[in-house]
Amino acid sequence: MASKVLRSAFRTFSTMSSVETLKLSRNRRFIGVSLIAAGGAFLFSTQSESLLAAQKMGNIDTSHFMAEPITDLNKLEVNPDDMKTKMELLIMRIQKEFCEALEQEDGGKFLIDRWSRHDPKEGGGISCVLQDSATFEKAGVNITVMTAPLSKQLQASMRARGKELPEDKQFTFFAAGISSVIHPRNPHVPTIHFNYRYFEMQDEDGNNKHWWFGGGTDLTPYYLVEEDVRHFHSVLKSACDPHHPDYYPNYKKWCDDYFFVKFRGERRGVGGIFFDDLEANDSSKVYAFVKDCAEAVVPSYIPLVKKHKNDPVSDAERRWQLLRRGRYVEFNLVYDRGTKFGFATPNARIESILMSLPLHARWEYMHQPEPGSPEYKITEVLKNPKDWI
Amino acid sequence: MASKVLRSAFRTFSTMSSVETLKLSRNRRFIGVSLIAAGGAFLFSTQSESLLAAQKMGNIDTSHFMAEPITDLNKLEVNPDDMKTKMELLIMRIQKEFCEALEQEDGGKFLIDRWSRHDPKEGGGISCVLQDSATFEKAGVNITVMTAPLSKQLQASMRARGKELPEDKQFTFFAAGISSVIHPRNPHVPTIHFNYRYFEMQDEDGNNKHWWFGGGTDLTPYYLVEEDVRHFHSVLKSACDPHHPDYYPNYKKWCDDYFFVKFRGERRGVGGIFFDDLEANDSSKVYAFVKDCAEAVVPSYIPLVKKHKNDPVSDAERRWQLLRRGRYVEFNLVYDRGTKFGFATPNARIESILMSLPLHARWEYMHQPEPGSPEYKITEVLKNPKDWI
Repeated sequence: MASKVLRSAFRTFSTMSSVETLKLSRNRRFIGVSLIAAGGAFLFSTQSESLLAAQKMGNIDTSHFMAEPITDLNKLEVNPDDMKTKMELLIMRIQKEFCEALEQEDGGKFLIDRWSRHDPKEGGGISCVLQDSATFEKAGVNITVMTAPLSKQLQASMRARGKELPEDKQFTFFAAGISSVIHPRNPHVPTIHFNYRYFEMQDEDGNNKHWWFGGGTDLTPYYLVEEDVRHFHSVLKSACDPHHPDYYPNYKKWCDDYFFVKFRGERRGVGGIFFDDLEANDSSKVYAFVKDCAEAVVPSYIPLVKKHKNDPVSDAERRWQLLRRGRYVEFNLVYDRGTKFGFATPNARIESILMSLPLHARWEYMHQPEPGSPEYKITEVLKNPKDWI
Repeated sequence: MASKVLRSAFRTFSTMSSVETLKLSRNRRFIGVSLIAAGGAFLFSTQSESLLAAQKMGNIDTSHFMAEPITDLNKLEVNPDDMKTKMELLIMRIQKEFCEALEQEDGGKFLIDRWSRHDPKEGGGISCVLQDSATFEKAGVNITVMTAPLSKQLQASMRARGKELPEDKQFTFFAAGISSVIHPRNPHVPTIHFNYRYFEMQDEDGNNKHWWFGGGTDLTPYYLVEEDVRHFHSVLKSACDPHHPDYYPNYKKWCDDYFFVKFRGERRGVGGIFFDDLEANDSSKVYAFVKDCAEAVVPSYIPLVKKHKNDPVSDAERRWQLLRRGRYVEFNLVYDRGTKFGFATPNARIESILMSLPLHARWEYMHQPEPGSPEYKITEVLKNPKDWI
């Protein structure tokens, strides 16, 4: 498996010419088994304990990350209380913890691509991918940290969402987010998606500052095991409840509404939580909530992987899984706001955006499951969302 | 093969409950081996010569069609010179001729679904599908004939396209079109798409009439055989040239521009022709052009099927075909105006719209073909369209 992943890493490596050159800073702390391509991509393989120990410098322990943060470490270290720093370090840690938990279930190793935007001053991201592996057919865990001028078009759309942005000012926006979709091989293991993000914008004089958090975690099973769905929702509810008793019910409904494929009359999956434009007087309170949600991903999902990854699978079950993955593609390409935002962003890194698509998908004309079958049972829940707790 | 198709037909048949009941008219002339489902779908299998002979009644010889036309035969027969009649009969004939040519290459038989809109007075369509068969993995040939009130939203978008539609009038629109996508099994046989359509609209008093034609034929090879692409474009050019020397070059360019996937920086295929809003003083001249284009589909494409359907195929070639089919899905779901129009149409028959999607598609993170390889060669042409003649 490891050699397969390595081959795949090298294949990817050799084709990364479109990725911009990144400068190794801080004495190449993250060199590991990394390589510098002609095009400038870095690939990180497993690192030895001694190397990890060497990475503990300054205030930030980078051994908790898959690669060096996007923002210069000096800048992060001198601004520890800035929400931009806090959010970047949170998503870096969540990425590592989730990838490690997935690797443990799979036995394979994530390929790590650290990339920068067309203009490296605008930031970049770290895309971690495990593809065609033992437990996971395609697992993508991506972080993005970017600072860029707010286009007139985006400025108008922010205004339409209720943000007060004076027309005569130029705005800069900062975005830091983690986004992940996991497509397991076994149809009895559900697909999971989560995304947590922080936005900040201010004008050229440092005034008119706006900030907000958004995010969510949702589950797409191919077969309905009610106990599993209840487990998943319970963990999310436990993350929400300490912050506000309305959060779970409100964001559960928002999730059911958001992941609706109108032309199919069904939801993408059995939901979870979803929220956007979350702000308050005290940003640290919202951050604490988002942190708890992000930390709930592993306990909400990994037990389901463990439970079902070795379940027996029939050809019919595999076919059903591929048909449902076709529906997943439909939602992501037609409706998903994040994907659309990516398509509309100049010089967006399309491979990181479309990492969410499955390795395989299938479309059959007029396929409908037999009434009463397990395949039918899940479609009923997609048409009529339930309260799971 | 026949029994497989029949099984598939019956499976589909048993799940058609969402299709509205259709009335058999004209003494059930089209009964053949047809069946009436609880939900009302008709399935037509091959018809004997005697049955075909029996269908030659009145002025219209329905043996040239896959099923009974959508518009009542009486109405068609008493309005032979109405462009609505001419276009419906043209697309019915083209559907039959194309399906027969494909069946000859495949050995299988198309499943025929004749369906009506939610309100049967608004018309319906005939969807012909050959799925998971010997030569074709998914072949869909669909006709739609509908008359419906023009929504305020669509009225506004028509105005934006330059149609003069007084605001204080209610408009009705008529649309008749044929649309087809053929995904062959062998990666050396290209995918073809074509669509020819006629629109007409007028206000409640029968004034302010507008009409126009649109359409096109385009080819998506997985491997570049320049001779094949030249053949394809030559046949289209031969259809265009007698009507106007500018048609082929103009509509060839329009096609290259239309099938552009902006976020990939590449076209869907090697183009063909594409046009819209085509009108003139004499509608019969435009009709004659559209007819020649539609009749050029078989000679432009079938020779390529014959030539390559038995070519040897490696696993790597199959994998490449599936990756390119993923790109086909991206264009159709993100950009295609016909698909978007379908998603936005209330009670649209989504299965007929998404018949265009392949049976299988694949997405790999960061896959890029090796420079100089056959896979690379085709992507170069997709990035930089060529003049083929």
